[in-house]
Amino acid sequence: MPLSVPRSSRLVGLPAAACALAAPTPRSHAGGQGTGGRRWGQALGLLLSVLGLPAAAQAPALPPPDSVQLERLGYMSTFPPEGEQRIDQSNAYKYPQLRWVVQHLRELQPTRNIRRGPAPASPLPAAPKPLGGLQFEDAQGQKITVDEWARSTYTDALLVLHQGRLVYERYDNSLQPSTPHLLFSVTKSFTGLMAAQLAHEGRLDPQALVTRYVPELAGSAWADMKVREVMDMTGAVRFRENYTDPSSEIFGYAWASGLLPRPPAYQGANTVYDFLKTLPKDGEHDQVFTYRTVHSEVLGWIVSRVTGRHWADLMSQQIWQKLGMEEDAYVMVDRVGTPLQGAGLNATARDLARVGEMLRLGGRFNGQKIFDAAVIEDTARGGDRDKFKAGGLQAARPGYSYRNQWWVLHNADGAYEAAGVHGQFIHINPAAQMVVIKLSSHPVAGAAFTHATTLKAWAALAQAVR
Amino acid sequence: MPLSVPRSSRLVGLPAAACALAAPTPRSHAGGQGTGGRRWGQALGLLLSVLGLPAAAQAPALPPPDSVQLERLGYMSTFPPEGEQRIDQSNAYKYPQLRWVVQHLRELQPTRNIRRGPAPASPLPAAPKPLGGLQFEDAQGQKITVDEWARSTYTDALLVLHQGRLVYERYDNSLQPSTPHLLFSVTKSFTGLMAAQLAHEGRLDPQALVTRYVPELAGSAWADMKVREVMDMTGAVRFRENYTDPSSEIFGYAWASGLLPRPPAYQGANTVYDFLKTLPKDGEHDQVFTYRTVHSEVLGWIVSRVTGRHWADLMSQQIWQKLGMEEDAYVMVDRVGTPLQGAGLNATARDLARVGEMLRLGGRFNGQKIFDAAVIEDTARGGDRDKFKAGGLQAARPGYSYRNQWWVLHNADGAYEAAGVHGQFIHINPAAQMVVIKLSSHPVAGAAFTHATTLKAWAALAQAVR
Repeated sequence: MPLSVPRSSRLVGLPAAACALAAPTPRSHAGGQGTGGRRWGQALGLLLSVLGLPAAAQAPALPPPDSVQLERLGYMSTFPPEGEQRIDQSNAYKYPQLRWVVQHLRELQPTRNIRRGPAPASPLPAAPKPLGGLQFEDAQGQKITVDEWARSTYTDALLVLHQGRLVYERYDNSLQPSTPHLLFSVTKSFTGLMAAQLAHEGRLDPQALVTRYVPELAGSAWADMKVREVMDMTGAVRFRENYTDPSSEIFGYAWASGLLPRPPAYQGANTVYDFLKTLPKDGEHDQVFTYRTVHSEVLGWIVSRVTGRHWADLMSQQIWQKLGMEEDAYVMVDRVGTPLQGAGLNATARDLARVGEMLRLGGRFNGQKIFDAAVIEDTARGGDRDKFKAGGLQAARPGYSYRNQWWVLHNADGAYEAAGVHGQFIHINPAAQMVVIKLSSHPVAGAAFTHATTLKAWAALAQAVR
Repeated sequence: MPLSVPRSSRLVGLPAAACALAAPTPRSHAGGQGTGGRRWGQALGLLLSVLGLPAAAQAPALPPPDSVQLERLGYMSTFPPEGEQRIDQSNAYKYPQLRWVVQHLRELQPTRNIRRGPAPASPLPAAPKPLGGLQFEDAQGQKITVDEWARSTYTDALLVLHQGRLVYERYDNSLQPSTPHLLFSVTKSFTGLMAAQLAHEGRLDPQALVTRYVPELAGSAWADMKVREVMDMTGAVRFRENYTDPSSEIFGYAWASGLLPRPPAYQGANTVYDFLKTLPKDGEHDQVFTYRTVHSEVLGWIVSRVTGRHWADLMSQQIWQKLGMEEDAYVMVDRVGTPLQGAGLNATARDLARVGEMLRLGGRFNGQKIFDAAVIEDTARGGDRDKFKAGGLQAARPGYSYRNQWWVLHNADGAYEAAGVHGQFIHINPAAQMVVIKLSSHPVAGAAFTHATTLKAWAALAQAVR
């Protein structure tokens, strides 16, 4: 965590999504002459304000949720869309345009289908409880209801399952139950489970060097890194997220992947994998948890090499077709069809609920084994909490660890979760027999500002459903 | 039809797809100094050979079908794809890469979903007949079986329905029954049916000027054109398909739509609709059938204006969800989400079989009314055969006319069809109670070279199933 950016203004959570929020050119450079954190904070704040995004301070000025509802904004609703109403590559990651994009990514980017197959959808029985009015104290000690929390955190979907029954289901911001929503880093957790399953089956050795599977990375940070250090993000790779410096690696990722349009004179990597080869080591491996989307891309690469299958096909055949999903999902791909295995998955809230329930049940659902129970247990047990603490995300996620690309709360309920940068969650609470799906399009890229209240919401819901 | 290109080397069938086959830069200009047809033929031949495509002569040298099977070519099957195996925007419309692209368009382009909805798939009962061995005489008088015809015309799927039962179903070239296939100009026929239905309902006046619905076209060829002249392609618009002249309108369409990567200094239209506004009139309207993909884009624009709905949503709600489709379909969109209403649809062969059967049954299928019978009847009755004859496509399609964006054979069986440039068909033969779906990825862009045998195949199949 080398950046001397004040914690309050860092975009904590997901480099991939954070990069997606950045401007494509350095024209919006701040000219701040200060040093260290102050200068960075100024630059970042200016850049974010240009984008219409607040820097993630303790209490940024956020647009009132009612003002950024899609039904009000009317994006892309005339033929053709004109003026303010139009969303294309030039403004797709500005706010509030992002609220539309998370429901329509495939209309802007090449994608690959994750097919549900011909089987009927598996049951997701409803047993409604009036959880919307459930009151709890937020991080500031203010009373707030679940509905108010959902609304104030720009939630597009909120689903709560208890013992496999859908006790609460709320959609907002024009999201349809059938519409896949961009999940950002929730994607990583699927890649992590696939890798953990392969390790469990003995097909992938977590103690082997990455280069055993991907020799192309011999000249990079991953040259002497073990697979386990990729899975748990303790490998040391230089991947700066300096949004005011176009030499910062975050731009390389965004340009290589296609998340941001390339500058006219672009000479950089043409694909995500070619970009990964360029990243040097930065410190010692296995010392500190360092959250880097590029690790997930490497892990996905390894999974494809071990299986000989495309990530999207694995997702379809091993997960989507078995779980009895309601809808196809999809993943964004780069210019040569490589999936964004750290940030590009899109799926519906209900189908994610099935994933959560499968995990809660130890890897089985819809009469099928999806993952071995040992894989789920290994994930839920968590990773190294000291390395996590040293990694700088402790303030937002106190006591957490990271294992197999899942966030583990280490609370009394044994909870763990997948999380995306604008407030996407698959939250599993085994003790409360509860799964929560939250799909949001929050104006702040990162959990630092919201997560303290998120934790209180999880606890209140768990108490209410028991 | 102003081009003085020898008929044998014209890319007959679909400007949209033809443009998709053209090189993005003028570097491959032929320097021929001849005049008229000869010079054009030379230039086109050279360009096509650069692309690996034969000019559509009477007997072009085609790659042996076995040599261009995807299982043999192995495109995009390693992670990442390297060298010859890689397909991206730079070679996506070369041959045989095109064979992969027609099964994977969404992995290269932004697209919009056409959702099938939650209903179970409608029955498509099988009653197999050994039609593969059926022998008939091809255009040259040679005996050929249906299987040989399918193979030799680079067919990816061939389905024959008789009285609603699937009597023959063949897939090749790795196409899965569940994989949507690019349909090129078959797309137009859906747009045409939508418009005809709106006309039948009195919501769209075919005798009104286009500008009543789309005033933005007031400065273009469509300024004084009637809607009917768009529906039946008798409007006179300048849309040259000179593949060696980058000022030719075909490039404008390809660059505006995103079908071809834009040249570095591109200053042209950013969207398909902006491009349409630039096209001038070329002669008098309502004189001659002049096949132009841009008419279909205008017609789709009109449909969206009348309904206030996106083409993909109309396709889903009015067709895909009602017919009980097996799979979602999708359509390519330009940079602002406008669908390519003349060339961008992708769907499975089985779902197209349901469309064909619905048409054969007069607009009803799966217990639902999709179109009014009068709309189907109006379409099947055909358009003006004299205007068609004057249009220059008579050699390939003798006796045909074009109505509501459908090709009408005017044969004894009352047959009509939708057709795409690389050999995609929905062929309906009411008298024989037969529907044929043929999805191909033929190396020649155009029907001139193949259609005489296609007609003989239709006739042989109709005779066999009766």
